[in-house]
Amino acid sequence: MRSYPAGVRARKLAEEYPVVDLDADAIEAARLLATHRLPGLVVTDGRTGKPYTILPASQVVRFLVPAYVQDDPSLAAVVDEPLADQVARKLTGHRVRSMLPSTPKELPVVDADDTILEVAAIMARLRCPLVAVAEGNAVLGVITAARLLEHALASA
Amino acid sequence: MRSYPAGVRARKLAEEYPVVDLDADAIEAARLLATHRLPGLVVTDGRTGKPYTILPASQVVRFLVPAYVQDDPSLAAVVDEPLADQVARKLTGHRVRSMLPSTPKELPVVDADDTILEVAAIMARLRCPLVAVAEGNAVLGVITAARLLEHALASA
Repeated sequence: MRSYPAGVRARKLAEEYPVVDLDADAIEAARLLATHRLPGLVVTDGRTGKPYTILPASQVVRFLVPAYVQDDPSLAAVVDEPLADQVARKLTGHRVRSMLPSTPKELPVVDADDTILEVAAIMARLRCPLVAVAEGNAVLGVITAARLLEHALASA
Repeated sequence: MRSYPAGVRARKLAEEYPVVDLDADAIEAARLLATHRLPGLVVTDGRTGKPYTILPASQVVRFLVPAYVQDDPSLAAVVDEPLADQVARKLTGHRVRSMLPSTPKELPVVDADDTILEVAAIMARLRCPLVAVAEGNAVLGVITAARLLEHALASA
């Protein structure tokens, strides 16, 4: 028998993770991703306080790529337009909301009392690298796939 | 005019990133993900040395979720089978190769001499959080979306 701590719940594995509001400044969100080298941010809806979606860092990069390059990627090799020039144009004065894809990916939310197997099952089914852990309307934190593996390996 | 350094190439932004071979030990790969809290590992093909795919941490989690729970996720709430019990069963004695999805996602590979805009265009098009940077057969490192943003913001 393994000495797995009985009844470990999502609450115990939840960790702090940067959260931004839908109406937060776009450039601040980009800085948060860059400074902490994050693959994405949790976006909450300020009206409800609930986790709403993930803003992937790759989506912000996408937002910075000029439209004519997105239309014809081969142009990227021959034009000499630095990505940095797009920062002021695309991010300054904009909000997180406008950087999201037109149909934002749903952020999986688990309950603080869900079991670790439930969390793993959701992560496996949606192939998502992290889930938000909520208690009522409050986001307690997130559980990443790597954190889940750490827990499973430590208990094995 | 912005003082963007002219001619910045992928080589300059490439960073070290854990790489495992297709035939590496599955449990070692899981440990690498857990210890460094990575969203994924770069997998190389030992025969060619070339970057082959990404092993996402969520895929390893998926590998650990019992088949009957994958088939019927509602069972996760009612069974009391710790994820840790699956570690020995599913990972010990297995190789990275066997954890990959049946059609592994192609890892975008850019050339060390590609421009930053080319890297961004590929990342944007494939919506991927990182690309491998290669020079010939050798992997110099990776560029994550967050690193690309850091560069763009610093140069803006």
